[in-house]
Amino acid sequence: MMNVGIIGTGWISRQFADAVRQQQGARLAGILSRTREAAEGFRRPDETYPAYDDIEEFLADSQIDTVYIASPNSMHYGQAAKAISAGKNVVVEKPAFSNPAEFAKIESLLLQHPHVRFFEAARHIHTDAFRSIANQVEGMGAISGAVFSYMKYSSKYDAFLAGETPNIFTARFSGGALQDLGVYLVYDAIALFGAPLSAQYHPLLLPTGTDAMGTGVLHYQHFDVTLLISKTVNSQFGSEIYAGRQILSFGNGGDLGSVRLVESDGTVREICQSPTGNPMSEEVRDFTDVTQAPTEPAQQSRYSRWLKESREVCETLWQMRQSAGIHFPADDGGER
Amino acid sequence: MMNVGIIGTGWISRQFADAVRQQQGARLAGILSRTREAAEGFRRPDETYPAYDDIEEFLADSQIDTVYIASPNSMHYGQAAKAISAGKNVVVEKPAFSNPAEFAKIESLLLQHPHVRFFEAARHIHTDAFRSIANQVEGMGAISGAVFSYMKYSSKYDAFLAGETPNIFTARFSGGALQDLGVYLVYDAIALFGAPLSAQYHPLLLPTGTDAMGTGVLHYQHFDVTLLISKTVNSQFGSEIYAGRQILSFGNGGDLGSVRLVESDGTVREICQSPTGNPMSEEVRDFTDVTQAPTEPAQQSRYSRWLKESREVCETLWQMRQSAGIHFPADDGGER
Repeated sequence: MMNVGIIGTGWISRQFADAVRQQQGARLAGILSRTREAAEGFRRPDETYPAYDDIEEFLADSQIDTVYIASPNSMHYGQAAKAISAGKNVVVEKPAFSNPAEFAKIESLLLQHPHVRFFEAARHIHTDAFRSIANQVEGMGAISGAVFSYMKYSSKYDAFLAGETPNIFTARFSGGALQDLGVYLVYDAIALFGAPLSAQYHPLLLPTGTDAMGTGVLHYQHFDVTLLISKTVNSQFGSEIYAGRQILSFGNGGDLGSVRLVESDGTVREICQSPTGNPMSEEVRDFTDVTQAPTEPAQQSRYSRWLKESREVCETLWQMRQSAGIHFPADDGGER
Repeated sequence: MMNVGIIGTGWISRQFADAVRQQQGARLAGILSRTREAAEGFRRPDETYPAYDDIEEFLADSQIDTVYIASPNSMHYGQAAKAISAGKNVVVEKPAFSNPAEFAKIESLLLQHPHVRFFEAARHIHTDAFRSIANQVEGMGAISGAVFSYMKYSSKYDAFLAGETPNIFTARFSGGALQDLGVYLVYDAIALFGAPLSAQYHPLLLPTGTDAMGTGVLHYQHFDVTLLISKTVNSQFGSEIYAGRQILSFGNGGDLGSVRLVESDGTVREICQSPTGNPMSEEVRDFTDVTQAPTEPAQQSRYSRWLKESREVCETLWQMRQSAGIHFPADDGGER
């Protein structure tokens, strides 16, 4: 049984909790929020797992073996480090950490706690839709390029325009469009094609120092991948992978949607239908499988691959930020 | 009457000739090709204008007052310079010249021949579809960004893959995807938003030193415009201009297609239907109007605007090439 304690009571924690409730071999074992009231309000009427407002007490609970972290981005590192030190598996919402320095420190901690498993909650690469894309890419022949897009006007931007400073638009909380939506697209590229040789980012910056939107280019040996990212405009673009005259077409790079192959002659074949149901259920299934059989070779192999991808995504996001001069307070190190 | 002599007998010259045939106030007055046979073959059975294989004789023909140039890109400059020196108006296929140095020399020649009119044949900015886009942009409020795409697999790329070296994929003839298709998108941006503050280009280079495809970013004061360009892949992407939650959507940045406004609530309104008929007829109409009333203030004003846009497009393409390290022999100067 994977016994999940959840940090944070926002909508994404609720969605993750729902996926845990539905997953055989997993259950909710605790909830942590800044107030006990909010923590208690997270539970359903029939649920009795403990509600905490103190992270030390939460992590001392021996009934919890896996911690899900969906706090503001800049807080992931400190909370994950504490959870790993307490011997808990951790599932961290993407983007897992603010920079490769944080990631390296987490990997050091993981070496000291070899039984602990660390997962970045990149839900989309665990879906059937993503698997169908990956299978198709393998069969398409030489790839000529790709464009992945995720451009969605955020209601948080209305708040920003009204003079508020939502976390997601601040450097202090390691926010911005690249971190929030671009991370999906960088994952798409790395899970399909491996780490890029180099990466650039052209952001449109807000006065807060973070990016409202931007265009990224990931360079591979024989092709480039272009990323279109925005939290301040809507788009009807989906994503496309090119091989000769063929196009593998799908929706935005986070939700994927219907996957279609457009043949050279223009005929379209649907490879995978639009997903339905809880979009986090597939990652929760995968994390449960690994934590319940951590020493099984097949599970170890998947785990190692996800860890490598997570590290490469972190390094690529960092490279892109460096090319664009986007700095986070978290980059200066130190605990927060 | 605008009396048009045509240089080159390719499909684009045929399309331009058709537009001239249909245009009131314009007529075909001569054809130049490398062989007299090819020149004669260009004429329709009922046509009697002279066919030349020598540019000096062609330019000495007093019946011709306007020359259309659709030779390989690197030859535009030399031919245009000769035509202007001979006192002819010139219509040069896009991209007009290889670099700003050539453009500046042409502008010097134009000062010496004040009656001569020079046009870059950027057909799409003369269309009703483009005018409807420009009108809509003016009414949309603050622009948040734009993505213009033109990605089309070229049969010339099959020839290239088979070991041939089509002009359009050579630096020698000032070719490549940016020059050939990107020029449409740079025109879209400059005709709608003015010259960008700066511009970058990330090309995928062929062994010939030119680009097969690439991603461009044009920086404006308050937004960026991203360009997706390819001659080696197909795409289903069109183009989008963003303003708040609204999207102005159209087809590829060269053909424009149907123009639609997507409102904040997702409702779609068609602003302009897909164009039909000869796509060059509108530019031929405009060039005829200007050459037939060159001193009329309204025509002078349009002419000045097009000349400025043509210069800015040339400068922007150059900036993009510089950022990408794409060099043409034409950049070394000298006659070819």
